[in-house]
Amino acid sequence: MTGLLTIVGLGPGDPRYLTPSASDALASATDIVGYGPYVDRVPERPGLRRHASDNRVEIDRARFALDLATKGARVAVVSGGDPGVFAMAAAVFEAVDNGDPAWRSLDIRVEPGITAMLAAAARVGAPLGGDFCTMSLSDNLKPWEVVEARLRAALAADFAVALYNPISSARPWQLGVAFKIVAETRDPATPVVLARAVGRPDERIRVLPLADVEAAMADMSTIVIIGASTTRLIVRPEGKEAYVYTPRYYGVRP
Amino acid sequence: MTGLLTIVGLGPGDPRYLTPSASDALASATDIVGYGPYVDRVPERPGLRRHASDNRVEIDRARFALDLATKGARVAVVSGGDPGVFAMAAAVFEAVDNGDPAWRSLDIRVEPGITAMLAAAARVGAPLGGDFCTMSLSDNLKPWEVVEARLRAALAADFAVALYNPISSARPWQLGVAFKIVAETRDPATPVVLARAVGRPDERIRVLPLADVEAAMADMSTIVIIGASTTRLIVRPEGKEAYVYTPRYYGVRP
Repeated sequence: MTGLLTIVGLGPGDPRYLTPSASDALASATDIVGYGPYVDRVPERPGLRRHASDNRVEIDRARFALDLATKGARVAVVSGGDPGVFAMAAAVFEAVDNGDPAWRSLDIRVEPGITAMLAAAARVGAPLGGDFCTMSLSDNLKPWEVVEARLRAALAADFAVALYNPISSARPWQLGVAFKIVAETRDPATPVVLARAVGRPDERIRVLPLADVEAAMADMSTIVIIGASTTRLIVRPEGKEAYVYTPRYYGVRP
Repeated sequence: MTGLLTIVGLGPGDPRYLTPSASDALASATDIVGYGPYVDRVPERPGLRRHASDNRVEIDRARFALDLATKGARVAVVSGGDPGVFAMAAAVFEAVDNGDPAWRSLDIRVEPGITAMLAAAARVGAPLGGDFCTMSLSDNLKPWEVVEARLRAALAADFAVALYNPISSARPWQLGVAFKIVAETRDPATPVVLARAVGRPDERIRVLPLADVEAAMADMSTIVIIGASTTRLIVRPEGKEAYVYTPRYYGVRP
């Protein structure tokens, strides 16, 4: 008997962002594996086994799921956003690459989802409408020197920058340092988007000029988008939130 | 009477990637505006007006949609993939920024979608599992010097790179030059993903080492993903396609 492992992107919290293709993958699974809050988003049904774990053990969770699938289960590994962007897909393939050779025969699929930076961008306009870089600010899995070098390179080439994992209680200082580095080259008026819990009931989106941003405004559920030099605010009539966008053109407007 | 303009991400061609939220936006629209093939994806129904245009006039299309909405229509501007990534959202906000001041009072929403690079990545594994840059290779709206400087910066900082708009009949040489620049610093074995028409019946996905890639393998429906130095191939048993992934860690594996 051959199992199947699908890594399913749940999108931001709102089920209205879950694609029909991802819904189907969940509906045909025998086993759901993932971080507790994501597993909780999958409706219970008779015969569906749910395996919730905490957030710190991604590789162990991946191995557990691969093992289940190898034994014949149809496993859905659930992930917030898109599984390919700082989520479970890389962890599963890392486990395959370094684990039981039998895992290489498994059929592993990835169901894409709406990743947090795109949901956040959509809320405020089109801040990622030009070229952009996407990086995790966490130095748990790479040296801080690499994080900093990448951020500086992205800034020097005038990309907009989306930052995942900006801050946590175990990583309290990195975002503040990042904002300082940004301020060395970007104008103080550069729009910065802080998008917390997009698509969830406690969603909070703020757009601030770089000069007014502080690391304490973000938490581990926040995505930070830093505008490029060309990113613009569209001020609107009293009582309406400004739009933020980065034009597609660079230099002279066509 | 106040209209509404929603910029709707249709995702890759397969309707199974269209989010319920985007479906709802289409279902409540009075007018659909967009490039012909995207408008064709929206089912006809009584009372729904469809306004198809060709692909070269994004700003004109945006102005037309804004004008309709200002007159009270519920307009859905349809876009492939995610509207915020090299698609219609930036064009609409550019039009607002530089157009009729009345447009600033309009309620403009963006419905995110599955953008092509994430659909392409999902098909082959997790090539964007680490930090990555997303850029358009088109020099229609920015000077080639900017494109080249950004590509070099992304490579120097060892980001994976997703290239939109890699080639067209009017831009035949840019992708070949980009591959030459990549080859100056990346190993010839670096995995490169060429994903054509993801989610459509004529989908074709290829994974090749950098040394074997040629610009002629891509067309204007192709997304190109260039691996980072850490991007790995997982070779699988006879007859099964290799997986490609970029680990989350950088340097020593935890």
